[in-house]
Amino acid sequence: MTRNIQVSELDRRAVEDQQVEIVERKGIGHPDSICDGIAESVSRALSQLYLERVGKVLHYNTDETQLAAGRAAPKYGGGEVIEPIYILLVGRATKTYEHEGEVLELPVDSTALAAAREYLEENIPELEYGTDVVIDVRLGEGSGDLQDVFGEDEVQVPMANDTSYGVGHAPLTETETIVKEIENGLNGEYAAENPEVGPDVKVMGKREGDRIDVTVAVAMVDAYVDDLDAYKRAVAEVRAYAEELAHEYTDREVGVEVNTADDYEEGSVYLTVTGTSAEQGDDGSVGRGNRANGLITPNRPMSMEATSGKNPVNHIGKIYNLLSTATAEAVVEDVDGIRDLQMRLLSQIGRPIDEPHVADAQIVVDDDIDVADIEDDVTEIVDEKLANVTEITREAIEGEISTF
Amino acid sequence: MTRNIQVSELDRRAVEDQQVEIVERKGIGHPDSICDGIAESVSRALSQLYLERVGKVLHYNTDETQLAAGRAAPKYGGGEVIEPIYILLVGRATKTYEHEGEVLELPVDSTALAAAREYLEENIPELEYGTDVVIDVRLGEGSGDLQDVFGEDEVQVPMANDTSYGVGHAPLTETETIVKEIENGLNGEYAAENPEVGPDVKVMGKREGDRIDVTVAVAMVDAYVDDLDAYKRAVAEVRAYAEELAHEYTDREVGVEVNTADDYEEGSVYLTVTGTSAEQGDDGSVGRGNRANGLITPNRPMSMEATSGKNPVNHIGKIYNLLSTATAEAVVEDVDGIRDLQMRLLSQIGRPIDEPHVADAQIVVDDDIDVADIEDDVTEIVDEKLANVTEITREAIEGEISTF
Amino acid sequence: MTRNIQVSELDRRAVEDQQVEIVERKGIGHPDSICDGIAESVSRALSQLYLERVGKVLHYNTDETQLAAGRAAPKYGGGEVIEPIYILLVGRATKTYEHEGEVLELPVDSTALAAAREYLEENIPELEYGTDVVIDVRLGEGSGDLQDVFGEDEVQVPMANDTSYGVGHAPLTETETIVKEIENGLNGEYAAENPEVGPDVKVMGKREGDRIDVTVAVAMVDAYVDDLDAYKRAVAEVRAYAEELAHEYTDREVGVEVNTADDYEEGSVYLTVTGTSAEQGDDGSVGRGNRANGLITPNRPMSMEATSGKNPVNHIGKIYNLLSTATAEAVVEDVDGIRDLQMRLLSQIGRPIDEPHVADAQIVVDDDIDVADIEDDVTEIVDEKLANVTEITREAIEGEISTF
Amino acid sequence: MTRNIQVSELDRRAVEDQQVEIVERKGIGHPDSICDGIAESVSRALSQLYLERVGKVLHYNTDETQLAAGRAAPKYGGGEVIEPIYILLVGRATKTYEHEGEVLELPVDSTALAAAREYLEENIPELEYGTDVVIDVRLGEGSGDLQDVFGEDEVQVPMANDTSYGVGHAPLTETETIVKEIENGLNGEYAAENPEVGPDVKVMGKREGDRIDVTVAVAMVDAYVDDLDAYKRAVAEVRAYAEELAHEYTDREVGVEVNTADDYEEGSVYLTVTGTSAEQGDDGSVGRGNRANGLITPNRPMSMEATSGKNPVNHIGKIYNLLSTATAEAVVEDVDGIRDLQMRLLSQIGRPIDEPHVADAQIVVDDDIDVADIEDDVTEIVDEKLANVTEITREAIEGEISTF
Repeated sequence: MTRNIQVSELDRRAVEDQQVEIVERKGIGHPDSICDGIAESVSRALSQLYLERVGKVLHYNTDETQLAAGRAAPKYGGGEVIEPIYILLVGRATKTYEHEGEVLELPVDSTALAAAREYLEENIPELEYGTDVVIDVRLGEGSGDLQDVFGEDEVQVPMANDTSYGVGHAPLTETETIVKEIENGLNGEYAAENPEVGPDVKVMGKREGDRIDVTVAVAMVDAYVDDLDAYKRAVAEVRAYAEELAHEYTDREVGVEVNTADDYEEGSVYLTVTGTSAEQGDDGSVGRGNRANGLITPNRPMSMEATSGKNPVNHIGKIYNLLSTATAEAVVEDVDGIRDLQMRLLSQIGRPIDEPHVADAQIVVDDDIDVADIEDDVTEIVDEKLANVTEITREAIEGEISTF
Repeated sequence: MTRNIQVSELDRRAVEDQQVEIVERKGIGHPDSICDGIAESVSRALSQLYLERVGKVLHYNTDETQLAAGRAAPKYGGGEVIEPIYILLVGRATKTYEHEGEVLELPVDSTALAAAREYLEENIPELEYGTDVVIDVRLGEGSGDLQDVFGEDEVQVPMANDTSYGVGHAPLTETETIVKEIENGLNGEYAAENPEVGPDVKVMGKREGDRIDVTVAVAMVDAYVDDLDAYKRAVAEVRAYAEELAHEYTDREVGVEVNTADDYEEGSVYLTVTGTSAEQGDDGSVGRGNRANGLITPNRPMSMEATSGKNPVNHIGKIYNLLSTATAEAVVEDVDGIRDLQMRLLSQIGRPIDEPHVADAQIVVDDDIDVADIEDDVTEIVDEKLANVTEITREAIEGEISTF
Repeated sequence: MTRNIQVSELDRRAVEDQQVEIVERKGIGHPDSICDGIAESVSRALSQLYLERVGKVLHYNTDETQLAAGRAAPKYGGGEVIEPIYILLVGRATKTYEHEGEVLELPVDSTALAAAREYLEENIPELEYGTDVVIDVRLGEGSGDLQDVFGEDEVQVPMANDTSYGVGHAPLTETETIVKEIENGLNGEYAAENPEVGPDVKVMGKREGDRIDVTVAVAMVDAYVDDLDAYKRAVAEVRAYAEELAHEYTDREVGVEVNTADDYEEGSVYLTVTGTSAEQGDDGSVGRGNRANGLITPNRPMSMEATSGKNPVNHIGKIYNLLSTATAEAVVEDVDGIRDLQMRLLSQIGRPIDEPHVADAQIVVDDDIDVADIEDDVTEIVDEKLANVTEITREAIEGEISTF
Repeated sequence: MTRNIQVSELDRRAVEDQQVEIVERKGIGHPDSICDGIAESVSRALSQLYLERVGKVLHYNTDETQLAAGRAAPKYGGGEVIEPIYILLVGRATKTYEHEGEVLELPVDSTALAAAREYLEENIPELEYGTDVVIDVRLGEGSGDLQDVFGEDEVQVPMANDTSYGVGHAPLTETETIVKEIENGLNGEYAAENPEVGPDVKVMGKREGDRIDVTVAVAMVDAYVDDLDAYKRAVAEVRAYAEELAHEYTDREVGVEVNTADDYEEGSVYLTVTGTSAEQGDDGSVGRGNRANGLITPNRPMSMEATSGKNPVNHIGKIYNLLSTATAEAVVEDVDGIRDLQMRLLSQIGRPIDEPHVADAQIVVDDDIDVADIEDDVTEIVDEKLANVTEITREAIEGEISTF
C-alpha cells in the first residue's frame, strides 16, 4: 500500500506574513465551549462504558449539547443565580447490546449525565449543580451499527463511510500563540492564584503589520470582588499578566485591553456569580466556537465539523480534523525550515481511513529552503501518522487530546 | 364575634364498628408521596425565602410536581439506574418584589430546585441526584397578589376567597393506626437497622369484622440483598416486625403479608436499585396519594384537595384540611367518651378564615355518654383552634406538620 | 360460581336527607379536567392502536398528564396568549411487539400526541394548537406484560393483581343533579348559542336544609365580549339560564351566583382568550378533579383512584370505579323504593375480576320499603353487571363512558 | 467621513484555479438547515412583531434552535413516524416594553412558535406538526437594551459593540455554482414535479483539476415510492437531472452519484416518511451547516458566525457576513476582469457599523487586467454598500435575503 501523500508549496504568504490577522479563542467557560466540553466528556464516558461492558466501542454520537442561559443577580461580595442554566444533552447512543442471546442494558443516560456533571464540577466549579444548572438528556437509540474497531480484539482501521475533510496547520503564528497562551494562562496558573477570574475568558487577537492588539473578556466572580475598586484592580492585574505573557511570544508591539464593554460611570461591569456568561443571557451549543485546534482562525481554511462529542472510532470528520493538526505539528517539530504548513486530509468512501483520497501538505518554506529538499521528510512523517491513525482514537477516548 | 360551631351526633356507626374497613398509606418513597414531599418542601423553602427577603410570604402555589419514572436494572448485590427519573416542578411563584421603587429579584427557581434536591437526599438517600434523577422547573409568574398576612408585622387572619372545605377525624381506628405505624416504623427505626428496606413502603389494611389483614409492599434495595435467600429473609423479617407492631395496637386477629406479587419460581421479586418504584415504571404526582392526615380512608369523607405545595398562608383548602384534623385530635385528647369525631370546616367567601361558614363537629359517643354532655367542651376547643388558625400556617412553614 | 354479593341497609341517612351537602363539578375546560380528558383520550387511542395493529390491547397506563399554565393578555374584543400552556403526557406504553419472530414498532408517541391534539381541538376550540399550547410526551416503555384479554380472540375476564376498591352511588341527589346538569348545559346547548361561554365552567353546589346555593365560575372568551356591559349581560344570562335549569330538578329554594370573584370597580373580571384558566396561572393534572362519576362529593365515600388514562382492560381501580357507578345506576333504574344506594367493589388478588372479594350494596330505602324485599332484585342486577364486566372495558375503549 | 476601504491583490490563486476544491451545501430539509431556517424565521417574526407593536425592533437573538431526531418506520407506499422530532427554540427576547408608564406584554413565545410551525409547514410539508414534530420554546428575557435603529423614526446606523468579522466572495466557482443550483433545482422545480424527492437534499462537490464529482444524497419520501424498482428509477432520474444541470454551468468533466450509501442487496435505501433524516437519527442545530452565502467552502476563509436567528438590526456578525457577500456580488456584477474577490469587513468598537475598522477587498484579476485599474470602481461600490448598510437589515426582516 502506498498512501497518496502530496507535498507542495502553498500558493499564498504565510499567515505570519500577511498584513492583517485575526484570531479568537473562547475559553473553557464560554457557553459554546461548555457545550463542547460536555459533549466531549460524554463521548469519552460512553466510549469507556462500552469498552468496559462489551469490550468495544459501540455506535454513538453526542455532539449536540444545547445550553439555554439562566438568569443571575451578581453583586460585589457574592450574588446568586435566579433561574438555572438549562443544558440538554442530545445525540444517539446504543442502549442495548445483544451477546450470545442475552440482551445487556447499558446505562447510557446515567453515564452521560454523570459525565456532564463531573465535567462542570471540575471546570466551572462555582456553578452549583442542581440549583444553578439543570441538565436533561435526550439520547435517541443509535442505529445499532457496531464497529469492531476499537476494543479488546486487535485494533482495525475502520472504513470511511462518508466524504469528509480535515484541515490543520502548524506552527501557530505569534498571534495565535498569544491568544491561546493567554486563555490557558488565565484559566490555569492565574486563576489558581486569583479566584476572581472565572473560566469564561474570551481572547481576541488582531494583528495589523507588526502591531498585535489583544482584547480579553473575563467574567469576574463576584464572591471574590468586594467593590468597584477591587474590580478595577482585578482588571488591571489581568491586563498586566496578559501583556507580560504576550511579550514572551513576540517582539512585536502589543496592546492589551480587558473587559472593554465595561462602563464604570454606569456601574456596568462584567461581574458574574458563577464565572460564566451562561448564567445570564448567553446561550451556547456545540461546534459554534473553537475549531479542533482550540482556535478560530478566519485567515485560514477551517472545517465546519463539530468535533466535540463525535465518536472517535469511526467519525471521519473528527478523526481527520484531529489528525491533520497532529500531523502538521509533528512535521513542524521534526523538519526545519517550515514557516507555515497546511495539512489537509480528504477521505475516500469505502477505503480504510488510513488511506485517504489525498493527504495534502502545503508548505510555505523559509527563504533559504526549497520544498523539494524537505519533501521526503514530510512524506515520511505524514505516512507514519496515517499508519497510526487509531492512536488519535485512543487519545480521544483517554482524554489526552482536546477537541476545542 | 361568635363562630358558627355546630356539635351534633354523627348519623352513622363509628368506623371502628363498621363491618368492613379499608385503609391505605403510601410511604414516603412511593412516587406519589415523593411528589407530595417535594411539593411541600418547595413550599416551605419559598415561604422561608420570602420571609427572609421581604418580611412576608408572597403569592405562590407549588402543588403540581410531576414525576416520570426512570428505568433501572436492579440485581442482587447492587444494580444501576439506566435512565433517570424525570421530575418537573410546576406551579406559580412571585419572582420580583417592588419595594420603595426598587425591584428585588427573588431566586425562586434556584430555591425550589435546592429544596427538591435536599428533600430527595434526605428521604430517598439511595437516589443519586443528577444521574438517577433529573429535576427541572416550570414555575410561572404568580398573579402578584400579595398577602400581608404572615410576616414581620402583626399576623392577620386572611380572608376566604373561595368556597372550600376541609374534613378531619379522630381518633384513628385500630386499622388506621396499624397502617400508619407500620409505615412509620419501617421507614424509621426499622430502616435504620435494615438498610435493605427502601422508603417505598406501601401499606394496605383491610378489616372485616374482627380480622385485620395487612398487606405490605416494600421496595428492597439490591445493594443490601445478596441473593434470593437473603431476599426471602428480608421479607420474613419485615413480616415479623409488622405483625409484632400491629399487635401493639389491637387485640383483633391480624394477618400480615409482604410483597405478595413476588413469584420466586419466576425469579420475580420486588428488588430495586434506589428503594423506590419510581426508578422503573411507576410515575407519580401530587395529591394522588395520602390525604392531609397521612391516610387514604374510603370509609370516611375525604377532600380531593392536594394539600402539599399549597401556600399555607392563604390557601383555604390546605389550611382547613390541616386544621380540621388538628382540631379533631385536640378535641379527642381533651374530651372523654368520643368514639369517632368527624370535623368539617366550610369557608365563607369574604370573611376571615377563622370565621367559617360552619364548623361542624359530628360525633359518635360511647354508649354511656350523651353528645349534649360534651357539647360545650367540644365547642370551646374548636373555637380556640379557629382563633389560632395562623398557628397552622406557622407549623406548615416550619415543617412541624405533615401534609401527606 | 357464586359471587359474594351483599345487600344491606346503609347505616346513615340518605345524603338527600342530610342537613348539609356539598357538591362540585369541574367542567371540561378546567385545567384538571383538561388533563383527565387528554389522558383518557390518549388511553382510548392507544387501545385502538393496539387492537388494530396486534389484535389485542397491550400494556399501558397514561394517567399522568401534567399541565403548566401559560400566560395570556385577554381584552374585550379579543386578546392573545403570550406564553403557551405546556402539557406533558406521562405514562407507560408498549412500544414494540414481537410476533412470529418479527418485531413490530408501534407509533405510541405519535398516536398519543395526535389524540391529545384532537381532544383539545374538539373540546377547547379557542386554544390554537402549536402556539397557545405545546404538548410534549414522555411515555416510558411498559413492562411488556401482555394481556390476552380484549381483542380478536374470545374475551376473557382478567385476574385481579392488586387489592383495589371502587365505589359508586345512585341516584344523584337534587344538588348533584343540578351541579352536573348546569355544567353539561352550559358546555352544551348554551355554549352552542353563546360562544362567549368558555369550556372552563366550574360549578359548586351547597345545600343547607332546603336551600341550594349554586356558585358558577365561567371563563368568558374575550373575542365575543365587546366591553364591560356586554360582560355583565353575559354573566346575567348565565345566571338566568342556570337558575331556570336548577328549578327543573328541585322544588327547593335555589340561589345562583356567577363569577363571584369579579370586581367591576377594579375592572377585575373573569375574561380569557381561550376559555380556560389554564392560559394564565392555573396548572392542572390528572385525578385531581372529578371522580369517575363526574362529581366531587365529600359527603360520600370516594376513591382516590385517578381513573382517566388507566388501561381499561386490566386496571382494576378504573374498572371497579366505573362499574360500581354503572351498577348503582342500573339497580336504581330497575328497582323501586331506593332513596340512596352505595355500591362498593373490593378486589380479590388472584381471582378473576368478576369475582370480587365482596360486592357490597348498601341501601337507604324509602320509608314504606324494607331492604329484605328488594334484596333479590338488587343481587340479580349486581350479579349480571359483574358477569358483564368486560362491557365496561369496551365502553371505555369506544368512548361511550366518561371517566371524569 | 472617509471609509477605510482597501483594495489589493489576493496573494493566492483564484479558487477556480486551485488543484483541489471542495464545496458542500446542506439542503433546506437537512436537520442543521431546518434549525437555521426556523431560527431565521423566528427572527423575522419577532422583528415584525416589534415593528408592529412598538414601532422599532427590540433586543433579541434566536440563534440557538436545537433539533433532536425522532424515530420513524418508513416503508414503500407510506410508513409512519414513531417518535416525534423534538425541536427546542432557544434564545433571548424582549418580552415587555414600557412606554409612557404603561407596560406592554409582547407575545414573544407564541409568535416564535407560530413562525416555526409555519416555516415547517411550508418547507417540510410532509412533516405533520404536532405528531411528527414537537416544538418547545425557552426564550429568556433579553437584556432590555433597546435599539432605536430600525423603525418608524428615521433609520440610524447602529454602533458596533463588538469586534466582529464578516467575509464573503464572488463570483462563485463552477463547482460552487453547480452545488448550489443542484440543491435549488431539486428542492424547486424538480420536487414540484417529483414529490418523492424530499427537502433533505445534501450536495457535495469535489473538483480535482478539471474533473468535478458531485455526490447527492436525497431523502426519498416513501408515500411516493411504491417499491425498490420505483426507488431505483427515482434515483436514476435525480442523477440525470443533476448531471444535465451541472453541464449548464461547466465544460469540465462531471460525474454525479446519488445516494451512494444505498445497498440494494441489503434492502438498505434512503427512504423516509417525511423527507428529512431528522425523522430518524440525525440531530441538528443552528450554525453548523451552510455559511451565510448558502455554501460550505473549506478552500476559502469562513466565519464561524451562526448568522441565522441573529438580530439583523444590531448584530454585527450577521450584518457583516451578509454585507460582505452582497458587496462582493455587487462588485463582480459591475466591474469586469475579476476572477476571484474576497471581501472582508472588520468592525471597530464604538463606531457606526458603516465605518468598519477596515473593509478589505482582495482580488485575483484576469491576466490582462491590473488591480490598480479597477481600484476606484471597486472602492466606490464598497463605499455605497456600506453607506446603505441598513438595507441588509431591511432585507433580512422582510425575508428577501437568505442566511443559510
